[in-house]
Order: sequence, then structure tokens, then C-alpha cells
Amino acid sequence: MNEFELIARLTKSLTTNENVVAGAGDDCAVLDFGLPEKLFLFKTDAVVEGVHFTRETPPEKIGHKALARCLSDIAAMAGTPNAALVTIALPVNFDPEFVAKIYDGLNFLAEKSGVAIVGGETTANPERILISISLLGTVARGKQVLRSGAKVGDAIFVTGELGGSLAEKHLEFEPRLAEARWLVENFQVHAMIDLSDGVAGDLPHILRASGVGAELLKSAIPISRAAKSRPKQVASAKPPFAAALTDGEDFELLFMIAGKDAVKLLDAWKKKFPRLKLSCIGKIVAGGGILVRDKNGSHKLNANGYVHFA
Amino acid sequence: MNEFELIARLTKSLTTNENVVAGAGDDCAVLDFGLPEKLFLFKTDAVVEGVHFTRETPPEKIGHKALARCLSDIAAMAGTPNAALVTIALPVNFDPEFVAKIYDGLNFLAEKSGVAIVGGETTANPERILISISLLGTVARGKQVLRSGAKVGDAIFVTGELGGSLAEKHLEFEPRLAEARWLVENFQVHAMIDLSDGVAGDLPHILRASGVGAELLKSAIPISRAAKSRPKQVASAKPPFAAALTDGEDFELLFMIAGKDAVKLLDAWKKKFPRLKLSCIGKIVAGGGILVRDKNGSHKLNANGYVHFA
Repeated sequence: MNEFELIARLTKSLTTNENVVAGAGDDCAVLDFGLPEKLFLFKTDAVVEGVHFTRETPPEKIGHKALARCLSDIAAMAGTPNAALVTIALPVNFDPEFVAKIYDGLNFLAEKSGVAIVGGETTANPERILISISLLGTVARGKQVLRSGAKVGDAIFVTGELGGSLAEKHLEFEPRLAEARWLVENFQVHAMIDLSDGVAGDLPHILRASGVGAELLKSAIPISRAAKSRPKQVASAKPPFAAALTDGEDFELLFMIAGKDAVKLLDAWKKKFPRLKLSCIGKIVAGGGILVRDKNGSHKLNANGYVHFA
Repeated sequence: MNEFELIARLTKSLTTNENVVAGAGDDCAVLDFGLPEKLFLFKTDAVVEGVHFTRETPPEKIGHKALARCLSDIAAMAGTPNAALVTIALPVNFDPEFVAKIYDGLNFLAEKSGVAIVGGETTANPERILISISLLGTVARGKQVLRSGAKVGDAIFVTGELGGSLAEKHLEFEPRLAEARWLVENFQVHAMIDLSDGVAGDLPHILRASGVGAELLKSAIPISRAAKSRPKQVASAKPPFAAALTDGEDFELLFMIAGKDAVKLLDAWKKKFPRLKLSCIGKIVAGGGILVRDKNGSHKLNANGYVHFA
């Protein structure tokens, strides 16, 4: 049993009840407790020393990242975050100042996002720091965006620029909460996800859930400066286009709206969010998987983000 | 800065918002989202390999314990658990069957308790398994029981028998959910907590939050068979009375009601829950701290559960 088989087994037989609108398998769980105008969103996410940060990471940024990752999932459902619980597992000889500064970063972002930190705990994890956050939010009833609504003919959009996040952005990114809420208030968003594993890793979640495929336009992919410059510094670095599609932790929004609304959205976005790029990177097509179109035609995208001739 | 100073610093400046009825510092956070009849309860708890269980622990019991600890906190507020998120951090060479069986134990208790497992994640923790669960529940508006309502003259009750939990019970205990809800439906419960650190460790939380003291009757403390038999097997074991007051992980309910209702409660309890002992172990008094009364008079209880002559 490998990791994916394990997850499949674990999530196959999970218990449910009458309050569950959407359980495991989307960015957040969606719960209905009978509030006339709201549904609840419920999400947890953990960061682990040596995996998501190191002892050399500025501690305020660790706190920021730990909470921002959860907020990004709330954004991907077009929700509003509300209350968080913070569990921090600590080695025996932890530096209390370091931990206090993690909380400073966490509190600062929580305050800014309207999130109350209502509890949590410290526990022991002898070898490394682990921070697990669970977040409760709400979404306007009927406005939650799942992964399963993409339709053939939809335009595919992505916010910001992609790739190279590990150089810096993964510790400082801003969850796209306001942008997502504006989107669903002004357009019918068919499907949405936040990019934690790159377009090549996350777009397939939407395609599978929606039973469709995607064709991306190579020249339309917004490649970050970090992804462009890295091959000049490190010979073994990924080519910029592959980095843009496969690097993790961009935490930008990837979403679909009807093709006919695409131009209107681009115009309205530019006025509303002039400092954040929005790119139409392709369209939803019949079939499954991801094709990338360049001047030589349309090719299959493999899991590494390299384009193979079909 | 020691651990308690750290927690004091971390919890001092936590963010809040208008939905928070009670934040960090009680068994669960209490949130108000405007549902006319219900408030929400929000709680997280983690178990760590080598601290709360070992690789030799039957994995189903690890799953049971991980969820039951959270359920016990919901019980301590007289709530009903509803939805859980499960984070499991795993070493690289984990045994998938072991992990699947942890989930089996977890699912079984979730099903029995009406809890939907609506998501979570697996992440890496190279040296040991860590399971963090967050739980969302509800409580009838006005029926939530905080730690801060104990009054001078109240009778102090405890369910079950105390001490020696690590011999077996800590892996198999039943959260007192139904009992707690019956209590608040039929009696005015002034304060309640679940016993994770023993009466000597947890009663002070109520006393401090309520600004009162307690006098316990030594002969009334219900001592478990495990706590009684251990000194016969292990020379260095705590005396049974000390074990009953200071051993962790009993997960019984400790609560206060008006002294005048005590006999009525004992009678009604015996009819409703004939198989679960309920003991009146003392009363709330003015002042602070815990006194223990025996045939020689009233003595101060120190933190180790040993009675010192005043």
C-alpha cells in the first residue's frame, strides 16, 4: 500500500452525518447547520520543521505560513475565515522566544483576516516543531465553489505568477480571500482550487472531479521572476515553464468561468485588483488530462510539467 | 520562560472577533453564529507516539483514544459532537496497515458518536506518529457549562472511579457525552471539566476560574481497582489515594451543582445510569485551593496529591 492507496483506503469509509454537504476531497469540508444565509467551511493543515520550514526560517514567517495555508483553502471555496485552533508540537529544548515569535506572525495575519484564535494546545514532539491549524469559516449559502463544476468551454484563470515560490514567496504569500469573494459575487465561478502543488498537480483534481479535460496555452502561463531567474543561477534548476506548472506552494487561485464571461472578467478585474495579475491560461475541453498548446500544436502534459509530443 | 509562562504569553494576546463567546481557557471554545437554539463548540487535541501511545499499542485503540479525548472535552461542555478533521503525521517508513487500523478505531467511535469525519491530511513527521484531531460540536444555547460558575456551597461530583488509568483505561475510556447532556437537561450544573490531569490537576482550573476553594472528603473519593492494586505489584507506585487524585487520563466528569440538589441528583443518576458510579466528593468553600478532610481534620492538598497537615 503506497501513500495514495492509503489515503484512498482511509477516505473511502469515513463516517458522515446529515450536516455534511461536502466531506473530504475538496479544499474545505462544507457543513450545513441550518443557518439561512450561511454554510460552514472546515479545514485543517499542518506544517512540519524540515519539510515546510527550518530552524533558520524567521519564526514570524513560519506562523504566517501556517495560517495562510489554511486561509488559502477557505479562499478556494470563496469563504470567510472566522475561528482557528492552533496546535504546536515542540521538542523538549525548544526556545520559547522562537515559539512566541511564531505566534506573533500567526496573530498578525489572524488579526488582519478577522480570525479569532480560540484555543489549541502545546504538546511534545521530541525531534521537531509541528504546527497544525484548524480553521472554521463561513460561505454565503449557494456561493461555495467546489472542484466539481468545471464545464466544457469554460475559460481557465489563474491569479498572480507561478513557480519559484520556495525562493521566498511560500513564507510570505497573501491568501486570495478578498479576490475569491469578489469573484463569486460578480461572476459565476464553476470550479476553484488553490495551487499548493502547481497547475500540473492541482488542475487534475478539478478535471477528475468535473469529468473534463483542459487545454492550456503555453504562452499564456504567467511565469514568476523567481522561476525565470533560477536556471541562470542553478544549472540543475527546472526550465521556467516546467517550474511555473509544477512548483509547489504558489497559493494562487485557479478557477473556471464560462468562456463568454472571460473578457468581461479580465476588464473588471483590472479595475478592482490593478496590482494582481489575472491570466486566462486555457480552456476546459472534453476528455481528461491536460494538453498544452504551443506554436507546434497540442501536446500532453506529463506529471513533471514537461510537455511531451503527443 | 518555562512552559506555563510560554502558554500564558501565547494566550494573552490572541485575536478575537464578535462570534467568540468563550475562547482559549475552557474545555472547548464557544462560538455564536446566530443559530437561535445552538452555540458551536470547537476543540483540538493531539496524541503523540512515545507520549500518549507506543508502537506496541493496538492501533485501533490509538484511534479510539485520539478521538475520545476530543469527545471528552465536548462532554465537559455538555455538547454534542458533530464533525471532525483528522491530521496524521507519519514517519517515512510507516506501516500502512497500522495506520489503516488507527482509522478503523477512529471511525468506529466516530460512527457511534454521530461524528462525521469530513477531512484532514497525512503529512510527514519523520521520527514518530502524531495524530491531531479537531472537532466541531454544538450545545443547546444557554446549556453550555463553563469552568467559571462554581459557587460556595455547591456539591462536587465525579463520575466513575479515579486513578490507574494508564494500566488500561486510557486506551478504552468512554467519553461521558450522554451523561453530561442528561445532567444539564435535568439539573443546573454550575461548572464542569473532564479529568485529564486528575482532580488535583484539574479541580484548580475550576477553582481559579470561579474564584472559590474546595473541601474534599477523603473517604468519598472513588478509587479505581487499578489504583488500589498497583502498590501491591510495584513498590514505587503511588499510594491509592494519591493515584486517584493525581493520575492523568481518567476522562471522567468533575462538576458542581447546588448542595441542595445533591441527594436528588444521586437518586436520579442511580436510576438513569445504574452502571456508572457517581460520587459526591466534597463541597465548594470560600477561599482558594483544595482541602482534604479525613478523621484527623482538614488538610491542604499539595500538587502531588499527598495530604499535608495544615
